[in-house]
Amino acid sequence: MRVLVLGGDGYLGWPTALHLSQCGHQVAVADNFARRQYDFELGVESLVPIETLQTRVETWRDLTGESMDVYVGDLTDADFTYRMLREFRPEAVVHFAEQRAAPYSMIDRKHAVYTQVNNVVGTLNLLYAIGEIDPDIHLVKLGTMGEYGTPEIDIEEGWLEVEHKGRTDRVLYPKRPGSFYHLSKVHDSHNMEFTCRIWGLRATDLNQGVVYGQATPETMLDDRLATRFDYDAVFGTVLNRFVIQAVLGHPLTVYGTGGQRRGIIDIRDTVRCVQLACENPADRGEFRVFNQMTEAKSVQEMAETVERCFPGDVRIDHLDNPRVEREEHYYNVVHTRLLDLGLSPHLLSDTLITSLFDVAKRYAGRVKDEALRPKVNWREQSGPVQET
Amino acid sequence: MRVLVLGGDGYLGWPTALHLSQCGHQVAVADNFARRQYDFELGVESLVPIETLQTRVETWRDLTGESMDVYVGDLTDADFTYRMLREFRPEAVVHFAEQRAAPYSMIDRKHAVYTQVNNVVGTLNLLYAIGEIDPDIHLVKLGTMGEYGTPEIDIEEGWLEVEHKGRTDRVLYPKRPGSFYHLSKVHDSHNMEFTCRIWGLRATDLNQGVVYGQATPETMLDDRLATRFDYDAVFGTVLNRFVIQAVLGHPLTVYGTGGQRRGIIDIRDTVRCVQLACENPADRGEFRVFNQMTEAKSVQEMAETVERCFPGDVRIDHLDNPRVEREEHYYNVVHTRLLDLGLSPHLLSDTLITSLFDVAKRYAGRVKDEALRPKVNWREQSGPVQET
Repeated sequence: MRVLVLGGDGYLGWPTALHLSQCGHQVAVADNFARRQYDFELGVESLVPIETLQTRVETWRDLTGESMDVYVGDLTDADFTYRMLREFRPEAVVHFAEQRAAPYSMIDRKHAVYTQVNNVVGTLNLLYAIGEIDPDIHLVKLGTMGEYGTPEIDIEEGWLEVEHKGRTDRVLYPKRPGSFYHLSKVHDSHNMEFTCRIWGLRATDLNQGVVYGQATPETMLDDRLATRFDYDAVFGTVLNRFVIQAVLGHPLTVYGTGGQRRGIIDIRDTVRCVQLACENPADRGEFRVFNQMTEAKSVQEMAETVERCFPGDVRIDHLDNPRVEREEHYYNVVHTRLLDLGLSPHLLSDTLITSLFDVAKRYAGRVKDEALRPKVNWREQSGPVQET
Repeated sequence: MRVLVLGGDGYLGWPTALHLSQCGHQVAVADNFARRQYDFELGVESLVPIETLQTRVETWRDLTGESMDVYVGDLTDADFTYRMLREFRPEAVVHFAEQRAAPYSMIDRKHAVYTQVNNVVGTLNLLYAIGEIDPDIHLVKLGTMGEYGTPEIDIEEGWLEVEHKGRTDRVLYPKRPGSFYHLSKVHDSHNMEFTCRIWGLRATDLNQGVVYGQATPETMLDDRLATRFDYDAVFGTVLNRFVIQAVLGHPLTVYGTGGQRRGIIDIRDTVRCVQLACENPADRGEFRVFNQMTEAKSVQEMAETVERCFPGDVRIDHLDNPRVEREEHYYNVVHTRLLDLGLSPHLLSDTLITSLFDVAKRYAGRVKDEALRPKVNWREQSGPVQET
């Protein structure tokens, strides 16, 4: 199957491209390198050194004989988006190409506007390009579990059967997202559902939990195939940050009580989920949603898991929560559709944590301590003053 | 009360500004004249001649002694938006300043992207400006009944009490909008709810039905105070178009069966609703939604009302529906909150229709027949070829 991976240079886009290629699919990758640019803006970099996209692709070809077309450009540039689809003629498009950090979107007005325009316009251009060039293309789009927020009722997979005043309907699951980033994905979901309904497009929205881990079987073949590992308070996901803090002998910084529960998923399961979605496409006109997570844990539980597994002393510190979110809440998520397609989850295990400790130790000298401290506050509109 | 009316040069913004001024409020108006620009783009103009905003404001001052500050600029220009709020220091901001036509948003990709970026970014800038300058400002924002679509369950006012698997929650009412324009308002609503929740802003979302009519007591004081009357297939609302067609001796063009039901509201009630919302502000942190409509009618019923009232022969034609929408559906809307605040509705009456016939007859010579025919088709992505 011909699969185009948008955002194919990113933390998850690159391992996904490798995995799909490994599975025998003809893969192309596209990126505008915005993610590398954010590093320059924030003065941080991936803990694990990463090669250029060109070197990555060459390395993969040298190792496996499999080639990947590379498209360098921006989805908000419609000419680029249309040209790429016309040239590569994918059967599936996997869309990771969005600004993906909640704290980045909350820095200030400019970052909020950038995040929503970048994400919404990129996806709109893609929907139009698919509709005009080949409405049979299956769009596999990365959403986030954060779109749902923390409702008092069970979280279903994208749609909800509602009974109200004696009548029933099947509606998009009501959303209560927690940042302008999460909101941008809610906007995308609404736009996508509309184009499935009126143009008969086919789309799968993968509402992904917090991803942890850094290595997949394919990235481990060669150091030059490594994907990024972000530990900073803006782009680092929570469990990855805790691992670095443990290795450095820093306290693990839990925001608030740590009672916040989140869906989580191992990076090896992420790439498998995308493969399953591509190989089992949605029907024409269908907008389907999978909750792409394997278990739910509280932030406190994640910290305690790291504490328990780390061979050394670990302290857990509770910081004032820079986010506005509920810290003690109901959280019960249905996530069976990917299991039904064949996913065998890697649950949060000592093995995984241990392999992450090894990665963190190997590159601990590259850590900038101050990057671990949260500077973006949900309550302030004007953004943090940059420390110099 | 100091009220800033954004989009104060438009079909509803201008009569609202006049009405608020008449009620004793200190009013300022802002506009970027995008609506007048769309006329040039589409080669149409308001049936009723309208003066420049400056002449309108001068006329009002000459007649009543009441002045209005005028701000010319664009909400997507954050510097403009912040400066205006800092200078005028409103207690309420009434926000009409969005691209407001579903067919315009469906012309092609560029118009869809323009509509969503213009509407979402303008509102984001406004939310940030309010948050930074004075979070006590009450935002009164125009939404649309079209955000809801036509669900199988009763449409509540913005929020829904859901019972699911034995648990309950109060959630944003699930939306299924019918165009990229309607979607832009759904995006706005989600962004607004978020800022009320995390910054403690106060906002009222007025989900307005289809407006008909052209005159209010204030606009009737002088021809130079007239507001626009759009009859074209892109910006003309359905009842206003039917009136023109009747006067010209054309068949009334009903899309499909005409079984589509819509909430409707008289222009005189629109200005009153906005007044009521301003004078009874939301609480800090509250995101409240009013369904701003006074009754529901099918498109066929609207056509038959015009047929019955018009002193002459009227034919009703059913065109292939250029939109993708349900033509026979359940539609039951709760709309009590504005009544509770004191609204006394003008229901669709022979009197109103008759006064509209007079307006249409007076200016019938200005009609361009071809502008009445729908050219934008929901099923086509690439837009109509412009006839020359």
